[in-house]
Amino acid sequence: MRFGVNYTPTRGWFHHWLDFDLDDIRADLDSVAVLGLDHIRVFPLWPLFQPNRTLIRPRAVEQLVLLVDAAAERGLDVNVDGLQGHLSGFDFIPSWTTTWHRRNIFTDPDVVEAQAAYLSALAGALADRPNFLGMTVGNEVNQFAGRPHPDPDRIAPDEAGRWLRRMLDACERGAPGRAHLHASYDAAFHDGTHPFTPAHSARIGAMTAVHSWVFNGTAQRHGHAGAATALHAAYLVELSKAWAEDAARPVWLQEVGAPAPHVPPERAAEFTEATLEAALDCPGVWGVTWWCSHDVDRSLADFPELEYGLGLFTNDRRIKPAGEVMSRLVRQWREEGRAEPLPRRVALAVDAGDAQDAPFRSVCAPGGAFFEAWMTLASRGVRPAVVLAQLAGDAGHLAARGITDVLTVEQVS
Amino acid sequence: MRFGVNYTPTRGWFHHWLDFDLDDIRADLDSVAVLGLDHIRVFPLWPLFQPNRTLIRPRAVEQLVLLVDAAAERGLDVNVDGLQGHLSGFDFIPSWTTTWHRRNIFTDPDVVEAQAAYLSALAGALADRPNFLGMTVGNEVNQFAGRPHPDPDRIAPDEAGRWLRRMLDACERGAPGRAHLHASYDAAFHDGTHPFTPAHSARIGAMTAVHSWVFNGTAQRHGHAGAATALHAAYLVELSKAWAEDAARPVWLQEVGAPAPHVPPERAAEFTEATLEAALDCPGVWGVTWWCSHDVDRSLADFPELEYGLGLFTNDRRIKPAGEVMSRLVRQWREEGRAEPLPRRVALAVDAGDAQDAPFRSVCAPGGAFFEAWMTLASRGVRPAVVLAQLAGDAGHLAARGITDVLTVEQVS
Repeated sequence: MRFGVNYTPTRGWFHHWLDFDLDDIRADLDSVAVLGLDHIRVFPLWPLFQPNRTLIRPRAVEQLVLLVDAAAERGLDVNVDGLQGHLSGFDFIPSWTTTWHRRNIFTDPDVVEAQAAYLSALAGALADRPNFLGMTVGNEVNQFAGRPHPDPDRIAPDEAGRWLRRMLDACERGAPGRAHLHASYDAAFHDGTHPFTPAHSARIGAMTAVHSWVFNGTAQRHGHAGAATALHAAYLVELSKAWAEDAARPVWLQEVGAPAPHVPPERAAEFTEATLEAALDCPGVWGVTWWCSHDVDRSLADFPELEYGLGLFTNDRRIKPAGEVMSRLVRQWREEGRAEPLPRRVALAVDAGDAQDAPFRSVCAPGGAFFEAWMTLASRGVRPAVVLAQLAGDAGHLAARGITDVLTVEQVS
Repeated sequence: MRFGVNYTPTRGWFHHWLDFDLDDIRADLDSVAVLGLDHIRVFPLWPLFQPNRTLIRPRAVEQLVLLVDAAAERGLDVNVDGLQGHLSGFDFIPSWTTTWHRRNIFTDPDVVEAQAAYLSALAGALADRPNFLGMTVGNEVNQFAGRPHPDPDRIAPDEAGRWLRRMLDACERGAPGRAHLHASYDAAFHDGTHPFTPAHSARIGAMTAVHSWVFNGTAQRHGHAGAATALHAAYLVELSKAWAEDAARPVWLQEVGAPAPHVPPERAAEFTEATLEAALDCPGVWGVTWWCSHDVDRSLADFPELEYGLGLFTNDRRIKPAGEVMSRLVRQWREEGRAEPLPRRVALAVDAGDAQDAPFRSVCAPGGAFFEAWMTLASRGVRPAVVLAQLAGDAGHLAARGITDVLTVEQVS
């Protein structure tokens, strides 16, 4: 089990790439290492690394390598997200894809080729670093397939899938054998009109990434102290597995955080502990990576209010209660060990329509019939797995996953 | 009479701010100085200098000062354009004004305040530099008031005027007493639906800037060897004066270039000479600033084809024929001197409707009745001034400008 944090630089947030300072980074990573974590996830800004379609700045790539090496000095492995893209409510899109050069970033041949070259270049620069875990294609790049982004970026699911495979091939070309993956925000699991699908999440790349944010309606509906709110990350982990073709495919809880006021700051530690406990009780979890390392500097404007306070540390690197909880749980895990969670015997069947496109996947969103039934079962102590309705009678599939009983949503009420 | 060049860095184009290298800049400016020029116009990239609404990067400002000081060492004065904004077919817009933060960059109070702070900061950092000419608000920022930019940026003329005055006040606050101005592309003179107007150009700021690009229909209509093509810059100079309230207000031909294939490369030198001669024959011209210093590196993708070859120097700093012409004319001017051009006695009246908004200003565009009549007169050797139809009978106005005869479009045919 891997424990890590999404690294948010204290000085200048991700604009730190413009004023790259290795001493600042070292001080930030010192605080991360103190928690006992084993990895970080880091975020180049795409327009700074590739300001022109045919210019991938060598110095930017060198600086990324310096960051990764600084992490290695502190015993931290590193995953690199390439295409940012989207971060904390801000979009960073190269000038060569907008306004006078507006074109679809998922289907325009020149853009796609340039993205592949960029991902290969980053991966290639890190291919010989032992602490390089692999690439994520980009942070929630699926955001760009919907509003408020330009209409031309709307694409069909097969186009999204083709793009993802192309990007992951590029990562593999740059750094063969590392765990390259992609990551979507939860529209992929909740919105039947969204071109990035649960099948993409669960079938493309080295593992499945889930990003758990209870501001998606869960906390609004169930309250900050509701069982569903603390179970939300575990729910997404289990939900994603329904679409996996490999029963042993690992799931990475790549982002999870305690957003105020949905989770009141004084309850952040409690929420963090409950969320981690629930997620760690899921079989097949590769690791958990908290969002985020450090609070955003209040001198920076325009962030959604909830984004400022998500750090395990304050902006001046003092540990917060949620950080203390995470540190304690990580040490317990490492020192005491823990048996792999037992397979879940009971599964709840999800009928989201055709498995490839999941047109009715809104049943999986907070307030949806499937979501609420799963939470009802979980609150009864069952903690169900999830199986596609199409596979609910497939003995081989169920046996491979250790599932003995399949319930329907209708049976839970 | 001032002669200068718009400085286009050879290494990385304007992305050079990301890899700021004073030695490269010095080598570029050495070539500019060899031409005998006295000033350059330089272009920060707004999103790099102000990546967050409340973060104006000190190091970026320091680098701008270093550039200005390197110019001083070579006897070059410097005008700084602040809000880029738009350059050679690429737009650079901060993430805090787009997608999730989309808001009108001319009217949103927070954006406008941040722009003012940014312009004040740049001007303030240069206020004690003797070679700092002043600020231009931004390069053709009026582009953002029309397509392909987002609809919310469409504004009314009075909003455009208010915004320009606010920006120029900010420049003045940062560096009192310098020649701060603004600059529009020629929609301000040719498109009656455009919110930036001829009156804004001719009445706001320390002087009137005109940008002369014969790819606007002039070269297409009149051919590269047509008289109108070489007269276009002089035409814009004279046209702009019609809206000036101060008869002595200087006009800066701030951008003019020889775009291929509208001007074939083998005719660039001839076009340059004819354009400069015509412009220098206009009274009240503050100076001419050629676009641009150096060709764009062909290894950079996606520029409109004509943008690659506009330099007076190749990308590896070898002088081109147009550069030789400019250098020769500048030296002649400096060594031989030349009398201030005589005032123009004959004016052509322009009826573009209400003087403030000029709703019918399309008559001034290539192919428009006024444009073609002016060119007809000029080709007969008259070289007319331009007077607003509303002022054609105003003896005081005409006397102040030295105009003795006013013709109408109808009289020229």
